[in-house]
Amino acid sequence: MLEEFKSKDIPYSRVLSSMCTIPHPIAVKAHVEFINANLGDPAVFRGSAELEKEVVRMIGELLHHPNAKGYIASGGTEANIQAIRAFRNLKRVKKPNVVVPESAHFSFDKAGEILRVEIRKAKLDGEFRVDVGDVERLIDDNTVGIVGIAGTTALGQIDPIEELSELALERDVFLHVDSAFGGFVIPFLDLNVKFDFELEGVSSMTIDPHKMGLATIPAGCILFRDESFLKALAVKTPYLITEKQYSLTGTRPATGVASTYAVMKYLGFEGFRKVVRRCMEVTRYLVERMGELGFEPVIEPIMNIVCFKCEKAFEIRNELYKRGWVVSAIRNPRALRFVVMPHVDFEVIDKFVEEMKNVLRKV
Amino acid sequence: MLEEFKSKDIPYSRVLSSMCTIPHPIAVKAHVEFINANLGDPAVFRGSAELEKEVVRMIGELLHHPNAKGYIASGGTEANIQAIRAFRNLKRVKKPNVVVPESAHFSFDKAGEILRVEIRKAKLDGEFRVDVGDVERLIDDNTVGIVGIAGTTALGQIDPIEELSELALERDVFLHVDSAFGGFVIPFLDLNVKFDFELEGVSSMTIDPHKMGLATIPAGCILFRDESFLKALAVKTPYLITEKQYSLTGTRPATGVASTYAVMKYLGFEGFRKVVRRCMEVTRYLVERMGELGFEPVIEPIMNIVCFKCEKAFEIRNELYKRGWVVSAIRNPRALRFVVMPHVDFEVIDKFVEEMKNVLRKV
Repeated sequence: MLEEFKSKDIPYSRVLSSMCTIPHPIAVKAHVEFINANLGDPAVFRGSAELEKEVVRMIGELLHHPNAKGYIASGGTEANIQAIRAFRNLKRVKKPNVVVPESAHFSFDKAGEILRVEIRKAKLDGEFRVDVGDVERLIDDNTVGIVGIAGTTALGQIDPIEELSELALERDVFLHVDSAFGGFVIPFLDLNVKFDFELEGVSSMTIDPHKMGLATIPAGCILFRDESFLKALAVKTPYLITEKQYSLTGTRPATGVASTYAVMKYLGFEGFRKVVRRCMEVTRYLVERMGELGFEPVIEPIMNIVCFKCEKAFEIRNELYKRGWVVSAIRNPRALRFVVMPHVDFEVIDKFVEEMKNVLRKV
Repeated sequence: MLEEFKSKDIPYSRVLSSMCTIPHPIAVKAHVEFINANLGDPAVFRGSAELEKEVVRMIGELLHHPNAKGYIASGGTEANIQAIRAFRNLKRVKKPNVVVPESAHFSFDKAGEILRVEIRKAKLDGEFRVDVGDVERLIDDNTVGIVGIAGTTALGQIDPIEELSELALERDVFLHVDSAFGGFVIPFLDLNVKFDFELEGVSSMTIDPHKMGLATIPAGCILFRDESFLKALAVKTPYLITEKQYSLTGTRPATGVASTYAVMKYLGFEGFRKVVRRCMEVTRYLVERMGELGFEPVIEPIMNIVCFKCEKAFEIRNELYKRGWVVSAIRNPRALRFVVMPHVDFEVIDKFVEEMKNVLRKV
């Protein structure tokens, strides 16, 4: 019975625009071992809770701040909501607002609606990075924080976090870096770019193990510079032995904690470097093959995300979908979008390009 | 390495106050089969999305409304937040408030803080049911909804949902029923009580498969009477083929959907009836054995939750915890609290009572 439903899912080998992927086999193994544990009750699941602390330390280390405080969340959306919530709760202004780049993920719109925080959108520059001047212009007395993206959803672009950090310090607002995707990519690229806690103005970061961290779903992560942000999220918990809870959810799985730990220990930073290097090779191959079909990238890919200018992006996407292939289309600029996750290999690209030729004859 | 952490978790066989339990073996099997799927992308995971619709229909059927609209959430906290959020968004008042019983789970305090909705607490009657007169007194022009609990966290008590339903209709406010625990219990008890969508005033319900539904974590469920509530939660989703998202999280697992489906199909309502009957037998046995030690229940247990009056509740809880046993303590009335989940069998009770005798000699 379940198999029937499962067979209707499109296999990852035909999905070229997901930020999730097939988890590492070692992640699945660890996940299953912790399938019964509930991190919502850390006095009972003491070992799982300790493991979470260790994973937070390891991810903190990756982001230049092993003492960061945070937890493994249900995903990037929860992480982004929690950052904005902490900012709102710490700066007690009447009509709070947060300035995000136009390129920010839609979870910030969701967070704003939920938290009753106005989301102001700053313009992008010609390279689709946020225009820091426009961010500055949008800041006022009610601004509780600003956001920078390290690996935008559409293009994989990295905002000028260093400048945003200076601006945040200067204007005394918090700075959240959404590196849900980029957090497990940027440290393994040979880029000369600062985007994490080594910048003094960065207050919090989102980084998702269930994206390029190859962990199982659900595994997001929110990290804060210090405990004060978590305290701003805490509610009292009667019935439990522990007294406070700062996660958005109550009962929560330890599976993502275990799977993240397992992959990070198994691969190490060197292993992740290899994974990222391979994804970049395949990304360049995709650019080359799409070039043969006359497509030009919107920007040279910085990470394993690439968009190709295409007026008929939506028609092509829909036609591909009918044939069981998944890519996405973006509106501004109009383009076809690809995320080259580890499951997208050279062979997948070759098969895709053949289908693409058929589609181009049709649309 | 992971084993070391895992060994520090207290095994369920010594946990007598958790609302989670060891999932049914068939739930674990189904969970693992769907470990890669992401319901945040339903156009890709079409089969998983279809399965979710079917599970929602099945749970709706259990609650007298097979056409209820909703989804499998991360847990009861998300479900409660989403109900309050929908109410707030649909009734556009300036300073929204919701009236909940004093016995409501702390997730309502969390929801109120997040959503900027005032949470008003109505008094309980002598049987620890909400005082409907007090709920009525607390309703004003800014009240967007009221809440009834079907299976309170502390005592497993059921609020007079029928009266709350009438009140909700009369005062034109929404009514949310939190049956996170009771939803998979009450239908299988021989109680003559209405608590679900068969009551016209009920707008939404929380029911958690990962509690008495024996599914794997995370699996909560929020059900609404109709689509309009989901629409009030929707945000636009660029990058995806589907256009809107109403869940609190973005990326979300299909594991809870699969495990819930598997258990419900395997056990059927008759199977659940047996599980609940057995839990009630063990609950009565616990009352008997605790009676031998001189303890008296706060109320006769209605479901498989029972509290015993005890001035030294916190000292006893702490002493038990030191010895690797988990019960909880409540403040008002001061009592020791037990949740008799399926993992708590006669043998566990006997072992616990022996330890309890040792503890009583000490405190």
